[in-house]
Amino acid sequence: MTTPLLTRTPRLDGDDPQAKRLEIYDHFIATFDRYESLFDTLATADAYYRKPIALRHPLIFYFGHTATFFVNKLVLAGLLEQRIEPRFESMFAVGVDEMGWDDLDESNYDWPSVQAVRDYRNRVRHVVGGLIERLPLTLPIGWDSPWWPILMGIEHERIHLETSSVLIRQQRLDLVRTDPAWAPCRETGEPPPNQLLPVPAGTVQLGQDQASDPWYGWDNEYGTHEAEVPAFAVARMLVSNREFLAFVEAGGYEDDGWWTAEGLAWRQFSLARYPSFWVPEPAGWRLRLMLEEVAMPWNWPVEVNYHEARAFCQWQSARTGAAVRLPTEDEWYRLYDAAGVAEVPTEGPGPANRHLDHWASSCPVDRFRHGDFCDVVGNLWQWTETPIYPFAGFRVHPLYDDFTTPTFDGRHNLFKGGSWVSCGNESLRSARYAFRRHFFQHAGFRYVVGEAPGLPPASHYESDRQLSEYAEFHYGAEYFGVPNFPKAVADLALRCVGDRALGRALDLGCAAGRSSFELARRCPDVIGIDFSARFVGLGVQMAGEGVLRYTLVEEGELVSWREVRLQDLGLEGVRERVAFVQGDACNLKPQFVGFDLILAANLIDRLYSPALFLGSVHERLNPGGLLVLASPYTWLTEHTPREEWLGGFKRDGENVTTLDGLKAVLGSHFRLIEGPVEIPFVIRETRRKFQHSLSEVTVWERR
Amino acid sequence: MTTPLLTRTPRLDGDDPQAKRLEIYDHFIATFDRYESLFDTLATADAYYRKPIALRHPLIFYFGHTATFFVNKLVLAGLLEQRIEPRFESMFAVGVDEMGWDDLDESNYDWPSVQAVRDYRNRVRHVVGGLIERLPLTLPIGWDSPWWPILMGIEHERIHLETSSVLIRQQRLDLVRTDPAWAPCRETGEPPPNQLLPVPAGTVQLGQDQASDPWYGWDNEYGTHEAEVPAFAVARMLVSNREFLAFVEAGGYEDDGWWTAEGLAWRQFSLARYPSFWVPEPAGWRLRLMLEEVAMPWNWPVEVNYHEARAFCQWQSARTGAAVRLPTEDEWYRLYDAAGVAEVPTEGPGPANRHLDHWASSCPVDRFRHGDFCDVVGNLWQWTETPIYPFAGFRVHPLYDDFTTPTFDGRHNLFKGGSWVSCGNESLRSARYAFRRHFFQHAGFRYVVGEAPGLPPASHYESDRQLSEYAEFHYGAEYFGVPNFPKAVADLALRCVGDRALGRALDLGCAAGRSSFELARRCPDVIGIDFSARFVGLGVQMAGEGVLRYTLVEEGELVSWREVRLQDLGLEGVRERVAFVQGDACNLKPQFVGFDLILAANLIDRLYSPALFLGSVHERLNPGGLLVLASPYTWLTEHTPREEWLGGFKRDGENVTTLDGLKAVLGSHFRLIEGPVEIPFVIRETRRKFQHSLSEVTVWERR
Repeated sequence: MTTPLLTRTPRLDGDDPQAKRLEIYDHFIATFDRYESLFDTLATADAYYRKPIALRHPLIFYFGHTATFFVNKLVLAGLLEQRIEPRFESMFAVGVDEMGWDDLDESNYDWPSVQAVRDYRNRVRHVVGGLIERLPLTLPIGWDSPWWPILMGIEHERIHLETSSVLIRQQRLDLVRTDPAWAPCRETGEPPPNQLLPVPAGTVQLGQDQASDPWYGWDNEYGTHEAEVPAFAVARMLVSNREFLAFVEAGGYEDDGWWTAEGLAWRQFSLARYPSFWVPEPAGWRLRLMLEEVAMPWNWPVEVNYHEARAFCQWQSARTGAAVRLPTEDEWYRLYDAAGVAEVPTEGPGPANRHLDHWASSCPVDRFRHGDFCDVVGNLWQWTETPIYPFAGFRVHPLYDDFTTPTFDGRHNLFKGGSWVSCGNESLRSARYAFRRHFFQHAGFRYVVGEAPGLPPASHYESDRQLSEYAEFHYGAEYFGVPNFPKAVADLALRCVGDRALGRALDLGCAAGRSSFELARRCPDVIGIDFSARFVGLGVQMAGEGVLRYTLVEEGELVSWREVRLQDLGLEGVRERVAFVQGDACNLKPQFVGFDLILAANLIDRLYSPALFLGSVHERLNPGGLLVLASPYTWLTEHTPREEWLGGFKRDGENVTTLDGLKAVLGSHFRLIEGPVEIPFVIRETRRKFQHSLSEVTVWERR
Repeated sequence: MTTPLLTRTPRLDGDDPQAKRLEIYDHFIATFDRYESLFDTLATADAYYRKPIALRHPLIFYFGHTATFFVNKLVLAGLLEQRIEPRFESMFAVGVDEMGWDDLDESNYDWPSVQAVRDYRNRVRHVVGGLIERLPLTLPIGWDSPWWPILMGIEHERIHLETSSVLIRQQRLDLVRTDPAWAPCRETGEPPPNQLLPVPAGTVQLGQDQASDPWYGWDNEYGTHEAEVPAFAVARMLVSNREFLAFVEAGGYEDDGWWTAEGLAWRQFSLARYPSFWVPEPAGWRLRLMLEEVAMPWNWPVEVNYHEARAFCQWQSARTGAAVRLPTEDEWYRLYDAAGVAEVPTEGPGPANRHLDHWASSCPVDRFRHGDFCDVVGNLWQWTETPIYPFAGFRVHPLYDDFTTPTFDGRHNLFKGGSWVSCGNESLRSARYAFRRHFFQHAGFRYVVGEAPGLPPASHYESDRQLSEYAEFHYGAEYFGVPNFPKAVADLALRCVGDRALGRALDLGCAAGRSSFELARRCPDVIGIDFSARFVGLGVQMAGEGVLRYTLVEEGELVSWREVRLQDLGLEGVRERVAFVQGDACNLKPQFVGFDLILAANLIDRLYSPALFLGSVHERLNPGGLLVLASPYTWLTEHTPREEWLGGFKRDGENVTTLDGLKAVLGSHFRLIEGPVEIPFVIRETRRKFQHSLSEVTVWERR
């Protein structure tokens, strides 16, 4: 290509702020320029307004969008007091999700002219450039630095440099023109046969550290993840067009058996019969590049989505008898480490087809060697089996809280290694990008043969409001200085147990399960039971994975993102001692007997018949065993019919409190040995609204 | 009569506990005996089971009830561990309200035999007697003493001594028998003409003091009330049967014009055409006494309910041209003081027909003179115009929280002075008993001519849950150490006002009005506006009367009773400066302009269009005036359509907080001069459940 080497994403440390300021300025200008040069490949104004694919905005949006993004984040960060062009900044703010259908009515948009957007970009360029010249700079630059949103804007534009190049590749050929600044590779031929090579077992460590990693990163790249990766075999090269042709010619697109249900749904919707950028001609297959069509370069890597890659693997497995599949993210890192790949060099083109160092296209699959392998990085992104998930310690950046979080849904798979146009942060080892599995980017795959991978890590953020509130109530922050309630009640119960035997405990109405874990500090066998299977699910997840993630309402529809871990509560060691099951306190199954302790916290005023539970609970306790009750006695007919209340009414003219009722129903089998005492609890509803209650605790010893 | 003088209600102070113990023992036995002797007048067992009037239980209930009352209160007080006869104690617990229709299905009751109840009474007598012999006694005996429920039981039985005597008087004549222990007066004749005598103006002081008044009293008798009573004229004697006959013969029961709507409804329902105890015979009127019928004693006082008494006064007014009416409670006390009446003497029969000192019936209206008047006390209760209301400082006794409170409804009028059978506490100057206006007791009336009395004091206890919670929120206790919120916000507003002029202030969304009063400490003209007329009603009452009364939910259906006063908050002096009106913040009337301060606390997230309010609020402020906003930003579509929220959502991909929204809508007319700061508030829902929120406060100065 005829352009100079594109600036690398800058290190954010150093001891010369003025030099860093200039480096960032150059980086900003280079990125802004290079992005605009991409749009020079559009042959006509029509190319800006005719949508390349139905589900995304036309290119004019993306032309304006990266400039608007700067403005929005700088306003949000308080670095810019006035918007530059409010109408544009509303219009260019939000892209279209790959599966969204909401905002596609183009009649909502009255797109401005290309020149108007170009002028707008110049104004933004001036404002951001001026800011970079003047803003006080202290090194290193961290998450909280005012420079972070500037770097965010630059890296954001580099992402769109790549995704817009895909859209241009999807634009009609007569609407684009070749450009020496965006020249493709001309090396083609037949690939050598692919082969599986061994990668020995090893440990991989993922996750940037805000303190020690001196580059810009997106939220999902921070935190920690360490994994032992068993030995596996991996294809030496990316799957080439030639290698993939066998699958196409074998009728792979017609045989439903190779496809997942989701993949099949996509294939039937899209009517795909071969890879998206392949062009069938009477004279044979051709390939659509970004700006031209060429005779099929058979030794270039094939571009497919996850579904096509996976179908190929299934077909390959059946053909070879080996368990061929896509790698996990961990396996890709093991390959990276084993192959001895390095980051993109700061000087001169690197030894990989990435960062626009060589061409504006793929190149042969054996062009760049990394150890025993080819294209461990670069050429194309490589699909993995792993849906994106948050590392331990994940938190969102306050200036861009929905960069990753909406993709923690098990439906966005990671791809790794970067393509020929992946620049800046995208080209770092730590880069983690994920797309819907049916989506096209400059992406292909390499396959592995190895042990079946475990279940993908949980990525789900619980957003059911009630479950989230209880996850926070049980495992989250303390508010108004009120100590964690499920722990306080369990601690009181354990204190009352004292020197008694404690072989088996029941936490009835366990909700999110915190008390169960707390009881397990002393009790080897704790069962948590809740009427709500949804609550039981929280406990099961916590016991199984040691982590819960959820969103909390801040204000209106705005949420924050939380992660809580048993480990941080000193409870990691008791996970095996706790089991959670669904059950009805008023109709418990017969096997739940022989307990030394039964805790029922904030339960009795939610039962349809508390007397039914309390009248027979002694049968489930060993002699001398303890029943611990805690309740705010909030009787409501929606939970408990009036005639089933234990107290809170007049009978024969006199007040009957719930404590009176408890004494009456428990008196014949129990002795009250502690309480009543009140333990406070707080349930957070929004950032500024809480339920603050007092639970009356009584401890009863079975006679 | 042939019985010894009935024991007086004992003083509860002194320095000889053993003597006091014996006095109380004698008092208990005398009361228990005298009550049983009343039932000896029933001629047959049938008399116990045949209901004298449809709306009350048969006499067997009342025979058991006074014993059960002892047991219930002693159990409640923790002085009795075991019930004596649970089945009886359920059956004999609750009487029938004079207007209740709920519990009248006698098939619910399987009344026991008279002998069984007699045996039960003996067991109770033994238990209570034993308790009196053994219970440690410290003098003086106060509300919190374990002796209080014992005295309560005795005084309760004395009330039923009177009310049961009325029921026996209403029983069929063939079911009762005369008894020398219950002999009536035999003195009859013609009364002298009644006449009006002057009572000079004066101050009356009502209300027992728990610290200094050494007698048992019921809850409503405590507290303080002082009133200036203008001069008035009052009938020298109670209205006699003779005097009332003129009204009957004049067709007073047929002329609807003399009756109130409520009185007319009663008269039409009851078909009354003459006083209830009058018996028309061919030979002339006769009178039903408790145990016999006699020729009409024309010079005895007529027995009527309030409606009949009031109709007589209306008729009398029309006839004489004077404004004849019933006295108020205050006027009765003025009469009492002016006449120089004393309490019932401890030794020998007193100079009044009360306390069973003379007969078991009325006597001539001129038989007992008190100063210039007759029967200021005794003979019959005297109806007043005053519905019972709580004195300042009223609180319920925890062992009998529904003795009075259900009658604070404006429908129960006080009567004063006691009848021939009013004993114990009933005979004290401080006694305050009230009945539904249509009810019959041994009650008549005397009339007055004087200035029209003012409105009766408010007696209503707000029990609407939301209003009560806000009354407590604004004027009641502090919870979790969180300072009163409406005061805290007003204080902050006044601090920001500083040295600015403050001629007129608006408290928008004033709810129960506390902030309005707080602002009035500095501002001479405060208007409180709320969308809810119900809330405005609380403010109006507080401004008008300086007091609010309400019930608070404790647990389930159980409530406690609260009273709050401006005086106790140091706000009595600013009542005149505050006005409350109903209004809509989004559509305020044009006259609400020219303010120096507008406070909108916890308002904006409850408006249907906050922007409508905020967009024009500057027009209502003087230049330099302040707008103080406080809100937890709890946006809910039930109050504010989603498209009207000021913040709490993403717009163009970025978080928009409510503060962002406020800055946008207010920016052109205001300068933010203080905040955001958070002020906490707590709203009590039950004894153990609270809303605990944070309100973000911002102060804006009009440019």
